[in-house]
Amino acid sequence: MISIHPLYDLPEIAAGDDLAALLRTSLSSAGLLPLQTGDVLVVTQKILSKMEGRMVDLATVVPSPGAIELAEQTRKDPRLIELVLQESTAIVRAVPNILITRHRLGHVMANSGIDRSNIGPGATERALLLPIDPDRSARQLLEAMSSNSDSRMAVVISDSFGRPWRHGVVGVAIGAAGLPALVDRRGDQDRDGRRLEVTQIALADQIATAAALVTGEGAESVPAALIRGLNLPEGENCAGAIVRPMDEDLFQ
Amino acid sequence: MISIHPLYDLPEIAAGDDLAALLRTSLSSAGLLPLQTGDVLVVTQKILSKMEGRMVDLATVVPSPGAIELAEQTRKDPRLIELVLQESTAIVRAVPNILITRHRLGHVMANSGIDRSNIGPGATERALLLPIDPDRSARQLLEAMSSNSDSRMAVVISDSFGRPWRHGVVGVAIGAAGLPALVDRRGDQDRDGRRLEVTQIALADQIATAAALVTGEGAESVPAALIRGLNLPEGENCAGAIVRPMDEDLFQ
Repeated sequence: MISIHPLYDLPEIAAGDDLAALLRTSLSSAGLLPLQTGDVLVVTQKILSKMEGRMVDLATVVPSPGAIELAEQTRKDPRLIELVLQESTAIVRAVPNILITRHRLGHVMANSGIDRSNIGPGATERALLLPIDPDRSARQLLEAMSSNSDSRMAVVISDSFGRPWRHGVVGVAIGAAGLPALVDRRGDQDRDGRRLEVTQIALADQIATAAALVTGEGAESVPAALIRGLNLPEGENCAGAIVRPMDEDLFQ
Repeated sequence: MISIHPLYDLPEIAAGDDLAALLRTSLSSAGLLPLQTGDVLVVTQKILSKMEGRMVDLATVVPSPGAIELAEQTRKDPRLIELVLQESTAIVRAVPNILITRHRLGHVMANSGIDRSNIGPGATERALLLPIDPDRSARQLLEAMSSNSDSRMAVVISDSFGRPWRHGVVGVAIGAAGLPALVDRRGDQDRDGRRLEVTQIALADQIATAAALVTGEGAESVPAALIRGLNLPEGENCAGAIVRPMDEDLFQ
């Protein structure tokens, strides 16, 4: 059995907060300490970004001519578009109300992952960028959380993405440490001895999505969750391993 | 807390089996009966397809000239391609080793969802098609499972899909009943009173993905799972509601 535990009682996170300490307090009050082998701590992108001071006051942003043009094309705020461009390496799709980019981390996502909701009172004029290096942050958080433990646990930094052919968002991993974010089973056989056709599983994305069942979006938003009881496969790679490089992009 | 329970001890499913009865026996031996409000039974596509007799002996398939041509282009078995074409309404992408189609149910997926692994001993020459109408099957299974209950529960039929910009498969829902497969929160506000930017959540896909943490793929494959403790939102729509129609396809 796997269990998914919401971590409710984290305070509003500010730049420079000791996120590991706050998470430990929350885990403790939920009766989830000590952490165990097979535990995965899932932290939403928003609180990691806030901790890293990735909030930008839109009043300080001067849009470039290119941003102004793209803002007209997509009917979005030119200051937001300026940030989207600064955070991206390529524009995948730009039509009215939709701007999909390849983020500098490689993820293809709406608005370079920049978020304008749920980022504190009076936040209408602020935007929250993705963490600087969420794989590295996941590693740091894992080390801070597991320093006194022999257990094999993992950390996933989650976000929610749309999909080109399906309505609605689902959870994805933009950072991971302590587990194979991408499980490679090439060469494995199924129970009838046939070579598997499905050879790679995006485990960290699946974990982020499972946690999204409790972290949700909106009014009842919960910023972190603990998943307990996973049988973590051998090996380790980061969320960057899930990114399909541009030269494999089927739609370029 | 949400819990995910693998259902291990289902027998090999054959055409015409009473799947609801077999699932009830498995749930009972796992100590999971009676079912409760907030329970979602997740059934993998494979066992539903087997129950519906969707196994095809490839020796009986005569490929059309179009299938033979497409098989050369994609380096796949022309008999398999014939089935892929029969099950699809459009070819989205065809390159060596990759064939992505729009399935007649609307889902965009590899090989029209046709599976050649894990489908019984000596199965090298057989292929398993998707269920005929997995939303309807989910409804029938829900009615059979909940007929003696006042609990609000749901059924999701799961499969695993690749993604264009990310490596590895994740779980998706191809059938759903008893819950809003697509949760629409347009008009809702976040905790700071701002209108939510993310307005639709693919709940059934998220549930299918969470279950995939225990159903997996390959040697330890588990054909069904129970998710317990979900706070199911009001309303109801089927997995078909998640499908983005062709005229909204950003990549056409």
